[in-house]
Amino acid sequence: MEQRVSLITLGVPDMEQAEAFYTALGWQPVDSPDGVVAFDLISQTLGLYPLDKLAEDIGLPVAELGSGAMTLSHNTRTPKEVDTLMARAQAAGAEILRPASEVFWGGYIGYFRAPDGHIWEVAHNPFAKLSAEGAFRWNGY
Amino acid sequence: MEQRVSLITLGVPDMEQAEAFYTALGWQPVDSPDGVVAFDLISQTLGLYPLDKLAEDIGLPVAELGSGAMTLSHNTRTPKEVDTLMARAQAAGAEILRPASEVFWGGYIGYFRAPDGHIWEVAHNPFAKLSAEGAFRWNGY
Repeated sequence: MEQRVSLITLGVPDMEQAEAFYTALGWQPVDSPDGVVAFDLISQTLGLYPLDKLAEDIGLPVAELGSGAMTLSHNTRTPKEVDTLMARAQAAGAEILRPASEVFWGGYIGYFRAPDGHIWEVAHNPFAKLSAEGAFRWNGY
Repeated sequence: MEQRVSLITLGVPDMEQAEAFYTALGWQPVDSPDGVVAFDLISQTLGLYPLDKLAEDIGLPVAELGSGAMTLSHNTRTPKEVDTLMARAQAAGAEILRPASEVFWGGYIGYFRAPDGHIWEVAHNPFAKLSAEGAFRWNGY
């Protein structure tokens, strides 16, 4: 298995609301069939898909599917960008779970829950500098 | 917010078991502090982190964190690779939720649940050809 994730699928209860949230953060979808919203990221795609249809595709009841045990982190170039993005997410309808603050290892981190229920981390990690295009790797560029 | 995900964090109940699973699939971790396992992917990192610590970082009880409403897909170059990877995952301890089969839109897809509880899709999508390095975008390379 090559070390890559092609597609991150967020099962969401309300497609319109979810699309509105991510576009309010500044993301732009690519053309896709009705019933799917796709955002091309660096080397992968993030898709929005109805939660009930995802459950059907997987073969489990919706009630067995949860969120939060897997989180997505968006890392920034500066601590100030963390504040900006947390504020923008809140304005777009996210719930702030943990306001941005310094953590023991030297990062500056906040968590929000999107209206679709998925939990995002916004992080500045001074020890893992992003590439010019924004790519991340554990020990930085 | 730039269109990228820097870090995918899997909260896992058993770090050793989770690391053993992903290394059995052929992934190699990079150096990281005790208590975190990190796999560098294309332009991002996937981290394994204790579920109870993730809950503490987020500020929610473990019981509120679930999985499956967000899935990760690993796309392959051929349908045969889907079969190979599903078999390898099963041999490494995954539960097959949906054996690989053709779907209405022309793809060939299976789902498994890793021993850590997270749900993966393995997919061949003939309409979204991967780049030489394995990068994915919605309308292909």
